[in-house]
Amino acid sequence: MLAQVTSEELILQSARQELARTGILGLRVASVAEGAHCSITNIYRYFGDRDGLLARVLGDMYEEFTAAAVATFMARLNDRKNLTVRDIARALPFPTTESEMKIQAFRMQILATSTENQRLCDRLKKISTMRATVWQESFAELDSKMAPGERYDRRVFRVMLANFAPYYNSLLGDMQVTAEEFYEFMEDKLRLK
Amino acid sequence: MLAQVTSEELILQSARQELARTGILGLRVASVAEGAHCSITNIYRYFGDRDGLLARVLGDMYEEFTAAAVATFMARLNDRKNLTVRDIARALPFPTTESEMKIQAFRMQILATSTENQRLCDRLKKISTMRATVWQESFAELDSKMAPGERYDRRVFRVMLANFAPYYNSLLGDMQVTAEEFYEFMEDKLRLK
Repeated sequence: MLAQVTSEELILQSARQELARTGILGLRVASVAEGAHCSITNIYRYFGDRDGLLARVLGDMYEEFTAAAVATFMARLNDRKNLTVRDIARALPFPTTESEMKIQAFRMQILATSTENQRLCDRLKKISTMRATVWQESFAELDSKMAPGERYDRRVFRVMLANFAPYYNSLLGDMQVTAEEFYEFMEDKLRLK
Repeated sequence: MLAQVTSEELILQSARQELARTGILGLRVASVAEGAHCSITNIYRYFGDRDGLLARVLGDMYEEFTAAAVATFMARLNDRKNLTVRDIARALPFPTTESEMKIQAFRMQILATSTENQRLCDRLKKISTMRATVWQESFAELDSKMAPGERYDRRVFRVMLANFAPYYNSLLGDMQVTAEEFYEFMEDKLRLK
């Protein structure tokens, strides 16, 4: 038996395809409707207007990006015991590949859109608060696995990494921070003596 | 004798007024022309197209924001001698007021625009490289003024603060990093022992 796909889900899938094709600015509700084989009226029934549709789709994607970040970080440390501060530093994400930088650029676009789309902003606030709680739970798990004498400073995550925007680094060309520099620095700043 | 204002300058002034009124997405070249008392053709002659106009105006503003950041930081330390690491930490910008957060949101919009406007991206790259050099010169000046035994870690600026996006923090509501937490953390991480 095939799972029933609702028209709401079809609209959301079509909106993502359109976003990949045209970007946020170029997204046309008519094209989303066409891709979902539904009417524009139908889209408005579910999402109110174009901003409401964007709030939902971009919010969903932002939720996925931020969930993936903590999951990837924890997965890198999961089956280890006697964790060191170095292990934790090296498990941090530091985007360098073109596809990783594309995601960073898209995150920047979502954030910028949220400055002019109140519903998206409200959604990002909910996600951010929820994500902060997930990070705290992850730290509790890490704490129980640290090797004797190895202690890290949680504030580095809270104050620094939570506000880290690697897109800036990509603007620095030859002068940009390298992955090696980033990891050495993070290990040093994470370590509590 | 009054200074001669070129039509290019009038267009740039009008574009800034329009940006303040409508935001980046809403900017219409026709309105900029109206405000500058010139023709749309005239704007295209100077800037090529709407993206070219945005690349110039947003680039100029980004240059001003980043210049102001280093100038404000240095001005806070300028007439002091025997600088401590604490002085340096406390001179860092940490936006909290509504008007400061508005500038942060606008910076985010400029960065997002640069992901789809190659000329703006090229301009931001030039500005970022130039600004990194100005920061290095400022550090040389600070180094000559440090109190005996007080040493700070330049990498904190290069790796962390250069990639710092306080807009994220504004999404955290009650959970956000406070100014006091930020300054204590920065003092701790800046200090070289």
